Amino acid sequence: MTAHRVDGPVLVVGCGLIGTSVALALSDLGTDVHLRDLTPATAEVAAQLGAGTVDPVDAPRIVVVAVPPASTAATVLALLEEFPTAVVTDVASVKSDIAAGVTGHPGAARYVGGHPMAGTERSGPMAAAPRLFEGRPWAVVPHADSTDDAVGRLTGLATAVGAVPMTMTPQAHDRAVALVSHVPHVVSVLTAGLLASAPRSHLDLAGPGLRDVTRVAGSETGLWLDILGSNAGEVREVLTMLRGDLDRVLDALDAGGPTLSGRLADVLDAGRAGTRRIPGKHGDRAREHAVVHVQIADRPGELSRLMTHAGESDVNIEDIRIDHEYGRPVGLVEVEVAEDRADHLVRSLTARGWSAYR
Amino acid sequence: MTAHRVDGPVLVVGCGLIGTSVALALSDLGTDVHLRDLTPATAEVAAQLGAGTVDPVDAPRIVVVAVPPASTAATVLALLEEFPTAVVTDVASVKSDIAAGVTGHPGAARYVGGHPMAGTERSGPMAAAPRLFEGRPWAVVPHADSTDDAVGRLTGLATAVGAVPMTMTPQAHDRAVALVSHVPHVVSVLTAGLLASAPRSHLDLAGPGLRDVTRVAGSETGLWLDILGSNAGEVREVLTMLRGDLDRVLDALDAGGPTLSGRLADVLDAGRAGTRRIPGKHGDRAREHAVVHVQIADRPGELSRLMTHAGESDVNIEDIRIDHEYGRPVGLVEVEVAEDRADHLVRSLTARGWSAYR
Repeated sequence: MTAHRVDGPVLVVGCGLIGTSVALALSDLGTDVHLRDLTPATAEVAAQLGAGTVDPVDAPRIVVVAVPPASTAATVLALLEEFPTAVVTDVASVKSDIAAGVTGHPGAARYVGGHPMAGTERSGPMAAAPRLFEGRPWAVVPHADSTDDAVGRLTGLATAVGAVPMTMTPQAHDRAVALVSHVPHVVSVLTAGLLASAPRSHLDLAGPGLRDVTRVAGSETGLWLDILGSNAGEVREVLTMLRGDLDRVLDALDAGGPTLSGRLADVLDAGRAGTRRIPGKHGDRAREHAVVHVQIADRPGELSRLMTHAGESDVNIEDIRIDHEYGRPVGLVEVEVAEDRADHLVRSLTARGWSAYR
Repeated sequence: MTAHRVDGPVLVVGCGLIGTSVALALSDLGTDVHLRDLTPATAEVAAQLGAGTVDPVDAPRIVVVAVPPASTAATVLALLEEFPTAVVTDVASVKSDIAAGVTGHPGAARYVGGHPMAGTERSGPMAAAPRLFEGRPWAVVPHADSTDDAVGRLTGLATAVGAVPMTMTPQAHDRAVALVSHVPHVVSVLTAGLLASAPRSHLDLAGPGLRDVTRVAGSETGLWLDILGSNAGEVREVLTMLRGDLDRVLDALDAGGPTLSGRLADVLDAGRAGTRRIPGKHGDRAREHAVVHVQIADRPGELSRLMTHAGESDVNIEDIRIDHEYGRPVGLVEVEVAEDRADHLVRSLTARGWSAYR
């Protein structure tokens, strides 16, 4: 936990997963946190978890609005009026609509949008965690009239709870999340949707690549309806770019021969180039790692034994995945390590009795 | 390793990753394995690794052709002629073209296609591993004239090396791999390709979902050019279905309002339904698991310590992922366990000093 502290009082409005997590993180730092929810019992639950108090507050320094996206703009306006000295922020995942709804109203200068890039597949105060934001980007999204003071207070709050604040305009934010989150989600859903009507026997050849591409498609429908609906314009633009690229692939497949190879090679190369631009560990660009494959029995303790032996080999594990084998009580573990440590790890694990290979 | 044994002699033609791995697995079982490669030195390397002998063979029972896809059909025909009593199989990842190239030729009845669903990102005999096929599907792909005896010999070989044989026609195979492998690959590449030209600041909001969807797009261009080119017809058909679905999403985003919600909900629901059809652990349909999040410091030994504590908690880990945090020397580990063990694991890890939450 960082040593920063946030001057209070802070009022959190909406005690779901994100609101309660913000409140817990601030309370842990010693900030005076007040809680409010449309359902008072929900605020009580958050208070009992140590997120703050349900007592009323006169003049909060910061108000964090963490209500559902559809009610966010109206709630922000009401709170700007109720607390004429407070900076008001929100946590909704799409920002242009809200900025447009707030701009021009009294007190709009004290509003600055926010979007912590954190969450779990659960919801409600019981799912909250004070460290939810550690190391996560937190978009700080001023509109044209936001004051520097408002931006500074939100940046301080985000930093204090362990997040990495990134300032951007509402338009840039919504385009960015369309690109790195909403469109990848749609693509994953469409790919998974093809499987829904396929013969069962075709699915039997599925491997880890398919599971990677379709993993996010298993998410809750309601949440994604809201997100895609409120960012429809940007999602549409990026999806249209994708459809143009898809058409070029279809044309190349039609053409066959050298045309196919040339065009398809360009598309495949662009994809590789794109993956290398995704920020990797510690904000570096992604590094090239090597994968070591290890067979493990599928029972409690085996993975622990493997990790212990990997630790004894003095190799830092960058990433790890378990691919449970089809119809067998064993799993294949893919251990990703620095390229120059992979051969050492294979030798070291083999010497300890594991079936390991690159 | 299973107790099955394969009667030899077996001739492996092409000592790359797959050919050498087959040879190593069979040699480990005590089968008499002979090796051949267009580059004799490559066969020598495989022999030195214990994959078999480079001595000539008179009458192999089975010939495994593991040469590049483009040379496979011609090589199969030549070997059917050279060894008039052998069953000949291959390992190419697309099957209809090869079946069409072999059918009608003398000895075609002794050919049965094969496709082990295994591999690593490396190539060549040095990357080979005898356990590469354990628990992996191995498509057994007879053409119209293949004899039952030929099918039986390949099924026996696949089973002996630990794979799960699955019999299907060439057309069904090529459609299946288009659906579960080739089209998901194209989709991943197109999504990653969008990132290639995006402003760097947009990439800063990237999360684990994007990394999942685009992971396979980092693969080698040359290999995928061959695969997509040789299965262009099926890939085109499945991609065209996907484009139809994509157009429906774009129409819904245009329409807005209740039309958007209704149509988009159908697409999102179909995606969820599709993910549930992917075979999970041990051939079951995928189960619903819970994810427990744990913070770890990014240094050798930490993951080992976590796994040890998880093991002491008597919880079986179904899957695990490490999300390195942006700009910080810590990682967030996502541990997937059975739904009814998740709360227990959180309590147990918290008691041992970890920051764990669902």
